Order: sequence, then C-alpha cells, then structure tokens
Amino acid sequence: MNIPESELQARIEKFQAKLAEKNIGGALLVQAADLYYFSGTAQSAHLYIPAQGEPMLMVRKSLNRAQQESQLKNIVPLKSLKNIPVMLAEAGYELPKVLGLELDVVPANQYLFYRDIFSGCELTDASRLIRDIRQIKSPYELELLRVSGINHDIVFREIPGMIYEGITELELAARIEGRARSLGHMGYLRMRVFNSEIFFGHILCGASGAVPSAFDGPLGGTGLGPVHPLGAGRKKIEKGEPLVVDYTGIWDGYIVDQTRTFSMGPLPDKMLSAFELSLKIQAAVVERLEPGVNASDLHELALTMAKDAGLDGNFMGSGSDQVKFLGHGVGLELDELPVIAKGLNTILQPNMVFAIEPKFVFPGLGAVGIENTFIMNESGVEKITITPDDLVIV
Amino acid sequence: MNIPESELQARIEKFQAKLAEKNIGGALLVQAADLYYFSGTAQSAHLYIPAQGEPMLMVRKSLNRAQQESQLKNIVPLKSLKNIPVMLAEAGYELPKVLGLELDVVPANQYLFYRDIFSGCELTDASRLIRDIRQIKSPYELELLRVSGINHDIVFREIPGMIYEGITELELAARIEGRARSLGHMGYLRMRVFNSEIFFGHILCGASGAVPSAFDGPLGGTGLGPVHPLGAGRKKIEKGEPLVVDYTGIWDGYIVDQTRTFSMGPLPDKMLSAFELSLKIQAAVVERLEPGVNASDLHELALTMAKDAGLDGNFMGSGSDQVKFLGHGVGLELDELPVIAKGLNTILQPNMVFAIEPKFVFPGLGAVGIENTFIMNESGVEKITITPDDLVIV
Repeated sequence: MNIPESELQARIEKFQAKLAEKNIGGALLVQAADLYYFSGTAQSAHLYIPAQGEPMLMVRKSLNRAQQESQLKNIVPLKSLKNIPVMLAEAGYELPKVLGLELDVVPANQYLFYRDIFSGCELTDASRLIRDIRQIKSPYELELLRVSGINHDIVFREIPGMIYEGITELELAARIEGRARSLGHMGYLRMRVFNSEIFFGHILCGASGAVPSAFDGPLGGTGLGPVHPLGAGRKKIEKGEPLVVDYTGIWDGYIVDQTRTFSMGPLPDKMLSAFELSLKIQAAVVERLEPGVNASDLHELALTMAKDAGLDGNFMGSGSDQVKFLGHGVGLELDELPVIAKGLNTILQPNMVFAIEPKFVFPGLGAVGIENTFIMNESGVEKITITPDDLVIV
Repeated sequence: MNIPESELQARIEKFQAKLAEKNIGGALLVQAADLYYFSGTAQSAHLYIPAQGEPMLMVRKSLNRAQQESQLKNIVPLKSLKNIPVMLAEAGYELPKVLGLELDVVPANQYLFYRDIFSGCELTDASRLIRDIRQIKSPYELELLRVSGINHDIVFREIPGMIYEGITELELAARIEGRARSLGHMGYLRMRVFNSEIFFGHILCGASGAVPSAFDGPLGGTGLGPVHPLGAGRKKIEKGEPLVVDYTGIWDGYIVDQTRTFSMGPLPDKMLSAFELSLKIQAAVVERLEPGVNASDLHELALTMAKDAGLDGNFMGSGSDQVKFLGHGVGLELDELPVIAKGLNTILQPNMVFAIEPKFVFPGLGAVGIENTFIMNESGVEKITITPDDLVIV
C-alpha cells in the first residue's frame, strides 16, 4: 500500500512551514521512518526538502522500488553521497545557509561527513520539528492505527489458550510472536532512541516482572541472559503469580502498545489491589484527557493516586529503577511524542496517539498493570486497543 | 551466563594495546554490543577504558544488574552524563588528550554533547580498533558460535516439514521464527550499520527472490509493503519455484548466518545449474581459505566462476542492485569484519568467523544459492552451519 500523494504533500507542507519559521533553508532526511513518512518509501535514499519548493528524493538502492513506492514527483538516482551538494545545485536549489539534519539519529561519522560536504552551510538539528509533526496523526494514519489495534486484539484474545502451568516466558513469547507474524505483524520494531534493543515487548511472570533493565520503561525482565537482558526469559509460570504481557502490535508500520495482566489461579491480595489501582488510575486519567490538558498533570494525578494507596514506591518500577513517565506517543516508532511525564509540560492536542501504562512492580514478586493506546479526539479519547482490560485468571 | 573475568581482561588488554599504539589516551564506550563485549553487561552504561590501568564502568540503569553481570572490578553509579569528566578525574584518571568514541554508531547529538563536556580533549573514532579486535574470536566465543550453528540446524531441519503448496512466505516465516524462539533464539538481531531494519533474515519464493531492497545484500524481498520493504512477504509458494531461506541463528548473542534453497517439485534447469554453481563456488572458495589469503582474491575467484558460466549479471543480485561482496564477518553483530569484497584487501587470520554466500538472482524468476558460516582455523576452515547444503525438493 503506497502513501497517497495528497498525504505526502500535506506532511511536507507542514514541515516546510516549520523550516521557514526556524529559518532553516532546507533539510536532508535519511532515517528510514522519517523517509517513509515524508516520501512513502523506506529505500536507501536521501530526501532533500527545501523550505520552499519541490522536494527531491535521491535514491541509492533500490531506485526502481523507490519509484514504485513513492508518489513524490522528483526521484533521481544517487551514485555517491559526496555528490549531493552538486546534485542539489544542478537541480536548481540554492544551497541553504542553515541545513536541517536528523541529528538525534544520524551517526557521528555521517554527521562529520555532511559537515565536510556542506562546508558552506550551518548544520542544525531538525529532528524535533519532524517529531512535532509526526506526533499529530492524519485521518489516514489514525485508520491504520485502529487496524493495528484490531489485529493486536485478535492475538491477545488467544493468549489465555496458550498458557499452561509451567510454560516458560520464552515459549509463550514464541507462540504469541508466531501467531502475530501469521496475522501480518511487521516484526521489526522501530525506536528512535540509540541502543534500544527491545524485541516485541515484555512477557514476564512472577519475580521476572520486577527485574529492571536498561530499557526506559517500568518493566525489564531477565531476557535470555546478560547479552540481551530484557524481555522474556526462561522462568516458568507458576500458580498465584502475575503474568504481564506488554507487547507491541505493528501492522503496516503503525504500532499500538498494549499490556494485559494474567494469572494462573487467583493473585495474592496485594497484587490484586495494585492491579485494580492501575485500572482506577487509567480511568481517572482518561476522564481528564482532553485537548489543552498539560500531560505533566496527568502524571502527577497518577502518582498522587499511587501515593494515596501507599504504593508510590512500586509505581512505574521500584527503587532507583523507577521511570518518570506514565505514557508515550506511538506511531511508526514506539518512542514518539508526546511523552506524558513529570515536568515536560506538553499540551495535549487532537490527533495525538499515545499509550498510557500505569504499572506496579513488587521486588521478588512481580508486576501488574494495564496499558492501552488512545487517540486524542476533539473532546475525549478513543481507546484503540480493544481487548477487555480485566485481569484474566487462567 | 556471565563472561569470565579472564576473557574480559584479555579483550581489554588487546584494546589498550591498540589505544596506546594510536596515541589515544582512553576510550568511552556506550553501544550495547561493545559494552557487552568489554564489560560483560549490556545495561545502560558508559565504559571508560584508559590506554593503561583499570577500566571503570559507570552505570545508569540498572546498576544492580550490571553488578551481577559484569566481572569488572570498578563499577559505579552514573547519575548524570555531564558528570563523567568529573567522575573520571575524581577516580584518578588523567583526562586523555585524545579520547576514543564509537563515532560509527553514536548519534550526532550525543557526539556533540561529548564534545562539550570533554572540551579539553580531541575526540577520535575508535570504532575500527574495536571492530578489528572483535573480528578475531576467542575460544570462548568460537564455542558459542558452534552452539548457535547446532541450534540453527535443528530449526533448518524442520523447515521441509513446514512447507506446503500455497503457504505464504509470511506464514513460513512465522513458523520458523516461532520454532527458533522456542529453542532460545534471541530474536533481536544486532547490526552496526545505521538504518538496518532486517528482521531475522529473508524468506523469498519465486519472483520475490529477485526483488531488491535497501539492504546491503544480494537478497531483498517484498516484505509486507513499502513501510518495511524487505524479507518475507505475502507471496505463495508455487510448484517449480525456488525458495530461499536466509535466516540468522542467534543463541547467547552469537549470530550464525545460513541460507538453504528449497523447491516445490523440480527446479527449471537454469535455476538448478545456478544453484549447483553456487555450491561449486563455495567449494572453490573453501579450498582457498587459509590464513594469509587476501579476501579480495576470493571475491575475484567467485566472480570469475560466475562469469565463466555466463552468470556474472546474476551473481549477488541483478542489474544496478548487485552487491560487491561475497561474505561478511559475524559475531555479536551481523555486519562484523572481515568483509570479503572486491578491493578491500583484508588478509584472513585465524579465528575470524564469516559467512560466505554465493547467490544468483534472476529477475522475475527468483534467487538460488548457499550460505554458510565458517571459522578460519590455523590451516583450513570449520563449517559451523552444519545443515546439509543440498537443494531440498519438497
């Protein structure tokens, strides 16, 4: 499915307005998610977007596929990166005084290379402008996100049937991942932050749920060892333990993020009431969600509710491994804007899409919680991860 | 499984010798694979390795896990990245005149941040030194690579039983991936190069096998659409078509790379003879493999054999999407050194580990070929991907 031309045009126009506003003469984009977003192709290419005028897509590999996939008008072969400034000049572009790059993701050596070949330009970071645009989804994107929610629900509804006493996290992961892939899950999970090595998400039972990791989230997990120390490990699911499945659903590139809590038989009271509190926090936050709200206040609300229940020490992690956010934007990447966190003061706007994930972590015992992905509407929100929120006792 | 202290020490000593040789006073490492290689933990951390003396591991998250996983002596908490120069000074390190960084992978913004906080240091790229060390595997690593080969063979031997007429590439991918994960496959595939978005590898049948992609390899595939345009797609396997399964096997972090060709019923003569030529090329190359050989000559040998058969236009891709290499190093990352390619003049050394992958691509028809992972021994080579090489007719 190709991104329609009108969709690309609207995105490029928004970006051009921001470039002009910041006095950036043009931007050169290379990261796969950004390329796809603005050109409709994720082939190996450089996309030049001037603050005014037509963009030009210079393609290294595969030119033929880029031509089939992208609805941009101006698609040319790129033989050598060194030639880019000359190619731009020959195509009639004036070399910008200030050139925007994706400095949050482009490796240092590549940046230094651009600095050499664009020696007449000041290089600046345009990644925040891109992320600001990408956080407001178009109707086209919202529809794809809804479809991801529906597909992910099919997978999640089959999970109870996959669980048996003694199944390992890893074996359950294998079954869920296999089923999701059968249904067209993209597999590859895009994140913008450096060194993010997450695979699908987290499947953690009992004490595993409280094992922290390098990952910037409330859950970590043992993983399969120090070499990849997060996500599903080899622990077996036992009676009375919580099992959290925090998995990403990715169809046509669009990510929904969803967590459900399961257990083999009844949960201990402490965990059960923490789970119920996570639902109450979600309900209270959802109640407050409307355009104009400061995301930081939502984090504060959630934290206060956890504190009132005496569970602030277990909220979103435990001890020095607690994280300071309640939710995060999703789209083509798992770590999009907005971030719903303490002190960030992001004002929520219509057509933002984000996951809210109140979770509680008890060292030695495990984790419980809920996570859903929401579309911010003109008034309230639409929950697009449609699996029932309840604790599932298997 | 923790990396033994003696193993870490040997690696660090090699790196320190190279730092001293290049007049680099110390290096600050952050990338997960490098961190794991030199410290035994992939937690979020900065590892300072001075050209002489004890390294220091500064850990952001999770300190506790890093302490459990790493056998380094000097592990401290890292509260703020800004403090690193002060922390180094307080720990008694002299600030190096030249500081090595992984400039091939560290994002530009992070590099610019280091440039600010280390304003008294010249920053230089130490990534080639790291990659040079990592390409020579220790006996400990060779053993892990052999185990990956054995596990991957278990998966590959089950593939014929998973294939039926009309199964899609995606459904076959789901089955193979699910089975591999059950057996402890790590899932997450590390690559060093920017924008590498490969998931497990390629499963391509018929015409799909000749669809090129952004990926720097002979195979591409349709993938699930322009948003992730490589690997398994929705094509159904039909009679008389070649099916190539080029999948990575990753156990305990160590990657083997293996391709086998299958078909539903007999292959057309043209494809069959190209497949047989890929085996002959492999045999001829293996015959020549010994320490001291120039890798470039192996590429030349393979290309000449393809040319003699009139198939140089189909070797390692087709048309403008042909790639210029025959093989690549593997280890913790899929794109390690050495690269066996035209003009690179790498001299092969004992305990290098690499994949050799002669493949032929026929536009509209598909791809055939072979790929195995080899350990370079003192004299010849050891093939660690042990599945029989033959064409499997299902």
